[in-house]
Amino acid sequence: MTAPLAFARAHAQEFEGDLCEWLRIPSISTLSAHRSDVERAARWTADHLRAIGLDGRLIAGEGHPLAYGEWRGAPGRPTVLAYGHYDVQPADPLDLWTTPPFEPTRRGGSLYARGAADNKGQIFTFFKAVESHLATGTPLPVNVKVLVEGEEECGGRAVEAYIRSDPDRVRADAALVLDSGMFAPGVPAITLGLRGIVSAEVEVAGPARDLHSGLYGGTAPNPFLALARIIAGLTDSQHRILIPRFYDRVALPEPAERTAWTRLPFDEAKFSRDEVGGAGLVGEPEYTILERLWARPTLDVHGMPGGFTGEGMKTVIPARASAKISMRLVPHQEPEEIFDLFEGYVHRLAPPAVRLVVRPLMGSAAPVLIDPRLPAIEAARDALAETFGREAALIRSGATVPIVADLAARLGIPTVVTGWSLPDAGWHGPDEKLDLDHFHLGIEALIRFLERFAESNIPQRR
Amino acid sequence: MTAPLAFARAHAQEFEGDLCEWLRIPSISTLSAHRSDVERAARWTADHLRAIGLDGRLIAGEGHPLAYGEWRGAPGRPTVLAYGHYDVQPADPLDLWTTPPFEPTRRGGSLYARGAADNKGQIFTFFKAVESHLATGTPLPVNVKVLVEGEEECGGRAVEAYIRSDPDRVRADAALVLDSGMFAPGVPAITLGLRGIVSAEVEVAGPARDLHSGLYGGTAPNPFLALARIIAGLTDSQHRILIPRFYDRVALPEPAERTAWTRLPFDEAKFSRDEVGGAGLVGEPEYTILERLWARPTLDVHGMPGGFTGEGMKTVIPARASAKISMRLVPHQEPEEIFDLFEGYVHRLAPPAVRLVVRPLMGSAAPVLIDPRLPAIEAARDALAETFGREAALIRSGATVPIVADLAARLGIPTVVTGWSLPDAGWHGPDEKLDLDHFHLGIEALIRFLERFAESNIPQRR
Repeated sequence: MTAPLAFARAHAQEFEGDLCEWLRIPSISTLSAHRSDVERAARWTADHLRAIGLDGRLIAGEGHPLAYGEWRGAPGRPTVLAYGHYDVQPADPLDLWTTPPFEPTRRGGSLYARGAADNKGQIFTFFKAVESHLATGTPLPVNVKVLVEGEEECGGRAVEAYIRSDPDRVRADAALVLDSGMFAPGVPAITLGLRGIVSAEVEVAGPARDLHSGLYGGTAPNPFLALARIIAGLTDSQHRILIPRFYDRVALPEPAERTAWTRLPFDEAKFSRDEVGGAGLVGEPEYTILERLWARPTLDVHGMPGGFTGEGMKTVIPARASAKISMRLVPHQEPEEIFDLFEGYVHRLAPPAVRLVVRPLMGSAAPVLIDPRLPAIEAARDALAETFGREAALIRSGATVPIVADLAARLGIPTVVTGWSLPDAGWHGPDEKLDLDHFHLGIEALIRFLERFAESNIPQRR
Repeated sequence: MTAPLAFARAHAQEFEGDLCEWLRIPSISTLSAHRSDVERAARWTADHLRAIGLDGRLIAGEGHPLAYGEWRGAPGRPTVLAYGHYDVQPADPLDLWTTPPFEPTRRGGSLYARGAADNKGQIFTFFKAVESHLATGTPLPVNVKVLVEGEEECGGRAVEAYIRSDPDRVRADAALVLDSGMFAPGVPAITLGLRGIVSAEVEVAGPARDLHSGLYGGTAPNPFLALARIIAGLTDSQHRILIPRFYDRVALPEPAERTAWTRLPFDEAKFSRDEVGGAGLVGEPEYTILERLWARPTLDVHGMPGGFTGEGMKTVIPARASAKISMRLVPHQEPEEIFDLFEGYVHRLAPPAVRLVVRPLMGSAAPVLIDPRLPAIEAARDALAETFGREAALIRSGATVPIVADLAARLGIPTVVTGWSLPDAGWHGPDEKLDLDHFHLGIEALIRFLERFAESNIPQRR
C-alpha cells in the first residue's frame, strides 16, 4: 500500500470530523439571510486548503467569493483541476428531517446533513486525497488546482465570470467535477452526460390589491385560475411538454448507448417504490426510466407563491400569484432558445385580459456530453475499478452541473464527472446523506486517479 | 334632539378611543398562534358590555367563547338581538399595510386597522347606541340581547351550536346584523340577500418525499402539474363554473329587483378602476356587475401551498401540493350538495394515477334572502333615511354572514342586515378602514332604529 493510501485509512475518523465542521455552516446561497454563513463557509474552505498544504485563498468577485487553492510542485507534469461548491440548498421543510440539517449525524453507516452529498462531502474527498499525499511527504504526481464556488445552488455567475475573464487560470489537462454520484451501492460511475436547465417565474397580476372573495368574487380576476390554465397547457397528463418546437433539437443517444443502459443494474420497481414512492412513476411511456431521466427534457413546477398559504383559510382573491418553473434540457437544446419558446407560449396560453410577466429565475446551463475515449476518463475508470472492485458504469445524470459546460465544452478540458453520492442521497430534500464507506473509498479512488492520470503521460500544457 | 343622540355626539372622541382599544387586540381566529389574543378580545367584549350597562358575560363552548349581554328593563316591549363578531382575518401580507394592522390609525377621515370594518367597528356602534340611552338615564325602548362571536372568520360552529341547542335564548322580535355595509359614501343600505359559501382543500400527492427535479424529473409525478389540470378544468376563462349540475338550483332575482339594481348609483368604471383595479374585470358577460356579485355563484382559489415558495429558487418536485378553494353560493344552492358535486368532479378531472384528497376547509353557510316588507326592515329604512338624509338602497351582498341563515331562515326572526363600511373598506385585505363620519352616523341611526322599531307596535313574543 502506498503511503497516501495508508495515511487516508489511518485518518478516516479525523477526515469525517473535519467534514462535519464544514457541514455545520448553513451556507444556503439562495437565501439572503444566510449571506454571512456563505461567507463563513468560503473562508473555512480557503483556510482548509491552506491547512492541507495548498496555496489557498479567496477570490472576491461580484457574488459570493470563490475558494481557490493550488499546488505547482510537479513541473513538467500534467495539471488536474478539481471543482466543487461550498454552498447548499435551503433545508426546508425542516420538520421532515430526522435530525437537524446543520447538525451532521452518523446513522446506519451514513452521514446525514444538508450538503453531505451536494456537494461538500464530495469535493472534500479531493481535499483529503491531496492531504494524504502532502502529509506523508509524498510528492503529488500532478500539479493541482482546486476551485470551490459558492453560487452553484443559486445560479450565480461568479465562477463563470472568473473562468471567462481569464481561462488560463483554470487551464488544466484534466478536470475533476465531484458533483455527480455512484450508480448504486458499490457501483461507481462516471457521468458522461448532464442535463441543462433554464428557469422562469411566471407572475400573473389579478386585482390591484388583495380582495375579499365575497365582496368581489365573480368580477375580480383570480390570478391562480389564470396560472392554472397556463400551467395545464404546458404539459400533457404524462408530463410531455406541449411548447411548440420544444423538442426540435433533442437528439436521442446512439443505439449502442441506449443498449448499454439497459444492461445497467437498474431496478425499475425499486426505483419506483423506494426512491420516488408515493403514487408511482409518470412520464413518456415510449422511453425507459433511465432514458426519461438522462435523455429527455422535463418541465416541473416547484412552487406557486401568492395568496394565503398558511394554516386554515383566508377567502382572498390575491393581487398576484406566480409559479416557479424549470425545464431540464438535453443535447442539443439551447437554454436561451428554450426560454424564448417558453415565454412566447405562456403568453399565448394566458386567458384574455390577464397581465403576466415571465422572468428568468436563475442562471441557465446548457446540456453536456463527454467523450468516453478521453485518457482522463480511462484513468478514472482504472482508479474506480481498482478501488471499488468493479468497472465503473458509464452513465448520464438528469441533474445539471453548469461548470461542466464551461470546462468541457467551452474550454475543451477533458472532464471527469463522478462522485460518491447514492441515488437516494436526498439532494435538495430532507435527510440528505452520504454513505461513509463510499466517502472513504472515494478518497482512495482519487489518490489512485492522480497516479494513473500522471502515468498516462499527457503532454503538459501549462 | 333626544338625550341619547346628544350624548353620542358629545362623546364621539371617547367612542373612537374605546374602539381603538378593542382593535389593538389581534384576535385572528384562523391562526392558532393567536388563540390567547382571541380569548383576550372575548373578555374585553364582555367587560365592555358590562361597562355600558348590560348584563355582560362570556359563554364558553367548544371553540372560542361567545360574548353575550342583555338588558331586560322594558317588560312588555319587543326584543332586539344584535349580532357581531370580535374575531378578525389574518393581516398578511403585512408589507402592504400603510400603518400596522393592529395599531389603529386615523388618516383622511377614516380609521385604519384590521377589524375596523369587519367587524369590530360595526357592532361597536350598537354598543354605543345602547350606552347613549343607558348613560343618560333614558330607558331603552326595547329589550336588548347582544351576541358577539369569535369564530366568524374561521368557520367555527360555536354560535350555531349555542343557537341550536336552545333557540329561545336568542329569540327576538328583530335581529340586527351589523356585518354588511353602505352602498356608497353617504348612501346607507339594507342587505336583503347574502351569498353562502362552501370551501375545500384539494391536496395532491406526488412522490413520497421532496425530490430533486434533475435526478427525478421526467419520472416523478409533479403535484402542481396535476393540480393545475384540475383547477383549469373547474372554470372557463370567464370564471364560469364547469362543475356539472352546479347551476341547477340557481334562481335569478325577479325582474323588478334586477331593474331596481340598475337604478342604484353604481359606477361600473369606478368599481373596475378604483376597487378592483389591476387588469380589470372578468365574469359572465351576460350579467351586470351587480348581478355577478349578488346573484351569481363563484369559484375562487385563495392559495396553493406546497413546494418552495420562498425567495429565489429550489428545484424540488414536492411530495404534495394543495389548493385552497371556495365557492360562493346563491339561492337556492345547498352547500352540502355543492361540495359533493365539487368533490366528484375534482376526482374526474384528476390525471390518471394521481392520488388526491378533497376535504372541507371550514364551515359552510347557505345563501339567504330576506323579505323587504318586514316591519323591522321598515323601521330600519326610516332610521337610515332620517339619519343619512336619503333612502337606504335595498341591496344584496356577495359576502357570507352565516348567522343570518340561522336567525332569518331557521328561526324566522326578522333580520336587518346593514352596516357602515364602504365598498372599498378593504375587508380581508391590507389597509382595512372605516369612515369615521359613517361610524358616528351609524350610532345615531341605531339610536333611532330602536325607537322606530319600538313604535311599530310589535306584539311581544317573549
